[in-house]
Amino acid sequence: MKKVVTIGGGTGNFVVLSGLKSYDVELSVIVSMADDGGSTGILRDELGVLPPGDVRQCLVALSDSSRLMRSLMNYRFDTGSLCGHSFGNIFLSALEKTTGSFEKAVEEVGKVLSIKGKVIPVTTHLVKLKMLLRNGKLLEGEKDIHSSTDICKGFDSIYLEPFPKANPRAIDELMNADLIVFSPGGIYTSIIPNLLVEGIPKALRETKAKKLFVVNLVNKHGQTPNFKAGDYLREVQKFIGKDIFDFVIVNSGKAPKELVARYAAEGSVVENDLVKDSRVIFTDVLSNELKEVQKGDSLVRNLIRHDPKKLAKVIMEKVNEL
Amino acid sequence: MKKVVTIGGGTGNFVVLSGLKSYDVELSVIVSMADDGGSTGILRDELGVLPPGDVRQCLVALSDSSRLMRSLMNYRFDTGSLCGHSFGNIFLSALEKTTGSFEKAVEEVGKVLSIKGKVIPVTTHLVKLKMLLRNGKLLEGEKDIHSSTDICKGFDSIYLEPFPKANPRAIDELMNADLIVFSPGGIYTSIIPNLLVEGIPKALRETKAKKLFVVNLVNKHGQTPNFKAGDYLREVQKFIGKDIFDFVIVNSGKAPKELVARYAAEGSVVENDLVKDSRVIFTDVLSNELKEVQKGDSLVRNLIRHDPKKLAKVIMEKVNEL
Repeated sequence: MKKVVTIGGGTGNFVVLSGLKSYDVELSVIVSMADDGGSTGILRDELGVLPPGDVRQCLVALSDSSRLMRSLMNYRFDTGSLCGHSFGNIFLSALEKTTGSFEKAVEEVGKVLSIKGKVIPVTTHLVKLKMLLRNGKLLEGEKDIHSSTDICKGFDSIYLEPFPKANPRAIDELMNADLIVFSPGGIYTSIIPNLLVEGIPKALRETKAKKLFVVNLVNKHGQTPNFKAGDYLREVQKFIGKDIFDFVIVNSGKAPKELVARYAAEGSVVENDLVKDSRVIFTDVLSNELKEVQKGDSLVRNLIRHDPKKLAKVIMEKVNEL
Repeated sequence: MKKVVTIGGGTGNFVVLSGLKSYDVELSVIVSMADDGGSTGILRDELGVLPPGDVRQCLVALSDSSRLMRSLMNYRFDTGSLCGHSFGNIFLSALEKTTGSFEKAVEEVGKVLSIKGKVIPVTTHLVKLKMLLRNGKLLEGEKDIHSSTDICKGFDSIYLEPFPKANPRAIDELMNADLIVFSPGGIYTSIIPNLLVEGIPKALRETKAKKLFVVNLVNKHGQTPNFKAGDYLREVQKFIGKDIFDFVIVNSGKAPKELVARYAAEGSVVENDLVKDSRVIFTDVLSNELKEVQKGDSLVRNLIRHDPKKLAKVIMEKVNEL
């Protein structure tokens, strides 16, 4: 069975995994540990635990348990002292406190949810994502970086503090993968935070796995204005030190005009500027479902989103060619 | 297989169940819904859920899952906004909110914990325990009643508000039991609250099951001062309307003098005043373990406690005679 490893943060991994779960592949996901917004941020600050939010979403994506258990994991208290916390975040944090290990906590919740695959934190050190802007301002935490509109004016550095070593299991997964998928998501808040961990860029350069990059659908205002597919690739490659990508998925589907107009303030639709050679997969991976705007850990998700099934189908075509 | 049903609240059920669990009997526990202290009280007030604390303890007592899952259920957050909450209470409350049913929540946690037996709330209505003292003072809530030292001066009434109907499953269990065990515990806060539910006293009077009463070990200052075994029986029987007990377990074991002295302020040791006829089982059911004082939902437990194994052995002797 082919081994597919996805890497990312936020909801991007969820989208990729929930599509791939139906296929006969060995799945692992490497999750960024930079999240510090909402419920996750409060639990980090108050309990000193590793951020559970993104891991929770991956566990739910890979779960084969009842719809009830999956709903429970995402259930968010809406009143009282627990207000804003998702149950899954509390579950992971309580287990981390009980076992003394975040990885053990993830393993146990994985058992309860009967997950198909492995969920692996990119590092097991508690870190904070920081970004020093060219204007001298220091953005502290993923939440601040996520909401900044000054990043497009330039930044001097982005780093995790303290500089963490990679989880050896994450390195193993990368080295033993057949295909590594970069999930879509906030480039500075979900993708690059994985590449700031000691050992990850080297593993990505050295592994024999094929690498696939899923380009975002929409640019982010004040961060990636008018970025085209090639800009995303270049920005990410800076942190890997090499052009490693064998495949790049760029959406060719057209979102309804009203929707594009509605999100104009947030950012423009990402266009393709890559020469359509054999590595570029220019195809419709857009969701036609007009879902309700979901509120995650204090973030409002975009309505222009990838279709997990379409994305998985395209990825699996490449897996089957390996 | 014989069917044993225990009834009570607080830690009493836990003690009885954790001993009986090792035997080959069909176990059910009927749990009082009057708890409103500590974490349980906050969840009741803030979320409008049924009180999870006592149910959680019963689920843990009946659990066949790993020590880790049992520790997790009792794990109590000690800092931040979750401070004071036990994970198990949050688990039950989140499931009640997700499913819309406390009983469904109990069933699901039961599956996760692989419980042996059934845990049944005595009522599924959200109620408050109240007590009108003879001096005119109204005690509102189990917590207030638990800490009152004026009860011994007399009370006019104790009731649940609103007056709740019994859970039909609780009635079924009582009617189909071979033996019903009244677990030890606070007489006004754990035992009698079950008898204030419409339908429960009638079922207890009518069922063909044998009934066994486990007399408390220590009196409670200001509530049951110098009560002897017979006083407990009489007080409980008032609320059933009939002397229903076929067996009464009274401890004959002697607690170390230092311990008795240390708890003199809390209350004296309960003495036997019952004629030692065939229904009275006067035997050593005292724990020799000098455990750490445990902090439950804001209550400090007594160190003079029943030994679950000794208690279960005595109960099983009666079960085997049925």
